[in-house]
Amino acid sequence: MSTTVAYLGPPGTFSQEAAVNHFGENCEQVPCSTIDDVFACVQAGNAEVGVVPIENSTEGAVNNSQDCLADSSLLIVGEEVVSIEHHLLVPSDCEDMNITAIASHPQSLAQCRKWLKSHYREAELIECRSNADAASRVDADKGIAAIAGAMAADEYNLKIAQRSIQDQDHNSTRFIILGEQETTASGNDKTSVLIYTANKPGALFRILEPFENLGISLTKIDSRPSKKEAWEYVFFIDFEGHRHDEPVQELFHRLEDCTEAVKVLGSYPVFKPQS
Amino acid sequence: MSTTVAYLGPPGTFSQEAAVNHFGENCEQVPCSTIDDVFACVQAGNAEVGVVPIENSTEGAVNNSQDCLADSSLLIVGEEVVSIEHHLLVPSDCEDMNITAIASHPQSLAQCRKWLKSHYREAELIECRSNADAASRVDADKGIAAIAGAMAADEYNLKIAQRSIQDQDHNSTRFIILGEQETTASGNDKTSVLIYTANKPGALFRILEPFENLGISLTKIDSRPSKKEAWEYVFFIDFEGHRHDEPVQELFHRLEDCTEAVKVLGSYPVFKPQS
Repeated sequence: MSTTVAYLGPPGTFSQEAAVNHFGENCEQVPCSTIDDVFACVQAGNAEVGVVPIENSTEGAVNNSQDCLADSSLLIVGEEVVSIEHHLLVPSDCEDMNITAIASHPQSLAQCRKWLKSHYREAELIECRSNADAASRVDADKGIAAIAGAMAADEYNLKIAQRSIQDQDHNSTRFIILGEQETTASGNDKTSVLIYTANKPGALFRILEPFENLGISLTKIDSRPSKKEAWEYVFFIDFEGHRHDEPVQELFHRLEDCTEAVKVLGSYPVFKPQS
Repeated sequence: MSTTVAYLGPPGTFSQEAAVNHFGENCEQVPCSTIDDVFACVQAGNAEVGVVPIENSTEGAVNNSQDCLADSSLLIVGEEVVSIEHHLLVPSDCEDMNITAIASHPQSLAQCRKWLKSHYREAELIECRSNADAASRVDADKGIAAIAGAMAADEYNLKIAQRSIQDQDHNSTRFIILGEQETTASGNDKTSVLIYTANKPGALFRILEPFENLGISLTKIDSRPSKKEAWEYVFFIDFEGHRHDEPVQELFHRLEDCTEAVKVLGSYPVFKPQS
């Protein structure tokens, strides 16, 4: 039986590409209109797993996914990295369009910020829920073009007016796979946690000390507003190892003394690019 | 003679409010249309100082300002904190408008994410360069409302359809003042630095060690993609003290051994709320 996968839709998004890369083309796909909806869909049992973007190599964290992780009981059970190429898309039958507005997801607009500034400084930027949603709004009469990937161009019968317009060559996005069941150790795993600290001098140093002393490598650290008090922060940390590994168990034990709370977001196999 | 201040315009933005709070109502004001333009305006000598948002207490860092700081030779010479109240604005003569689109700056849309989701789930979200720009686009016939502050409502002759719709009560934004001249120590200062590290295990711990050993308190740490290599990060760190204080001089000396480079973004007096 194939897996039912909720993803940040509509069809044609990079999230769909991540879902297909991870679960194969025959997985049953449930497009959701927001990141919150992907979480809700899995939580409600309408899909076994969900796929949402968590971080882009140029633009940084996807704040909304981080906020949903903080509020949800779902676990991260896997990750998938997709290389992102953004194109400027116009209707496929269009020869010489006067572009006055460009639609895309805010992260994609940000990833093409310099290009937009030098080529379409005056164009209105229309924020959409996804790149595919932006592609569906392309309109020659209204002068609306879109920034999206090749998959969206196919899906909405558009052509590429300008190829690969993202500001950085090495532009990729990391997606997380959400589920309800803890994964067993694969031998090459990563663990994501959310750490709440008291707002005291040296708090972050004291959190990092046990990692250093136990020889556990951080692969990512990110601070976010705590949402409880202004100018208080929580830390999203990824590190090498599975939550059931002995050093990681000892780490959790030591963190009890220097944090307010630790929420384990999940342990999962490290992404391996297909060769 | 009054100071010439470039700010993220148009008139009616929270950046203007920060500029007026910091330099007084009689400062000469130069509205700029993007954060990049504020940097360029000061760099070109068309304004003595600039005012841009750097961090919101709900939504986190303003990525574009951080990226500009990394690329610019301008210094942070001061900070200003403004409490943010977002309102839903419609034309002042409008009784019962059918709202199909809501315009605002992406950070403001993010700060009202939950409210938008429960009240205007289907509305198109239009990303604008500023809240004031959004206010200028309000249009009863097209069904476009805006999210912006009271200053923008006054400026564009709008009325408040719904007051204080931001998701968090304690919503404020920290603005930085940009200039070319180093500030002298005031006795209660903060320093902002940008730290480049080798991508090695324990790198962040080794950066934080000298802070801990010298008793220098971090007030903020944030990681951003390095933009040089995918999945490499730089750290934006704020700490207590002035760059010419002796312990801070010693800190810079010790950081030489454990970083690739340290860029000092500026030392400046800590913001004191007016009572």
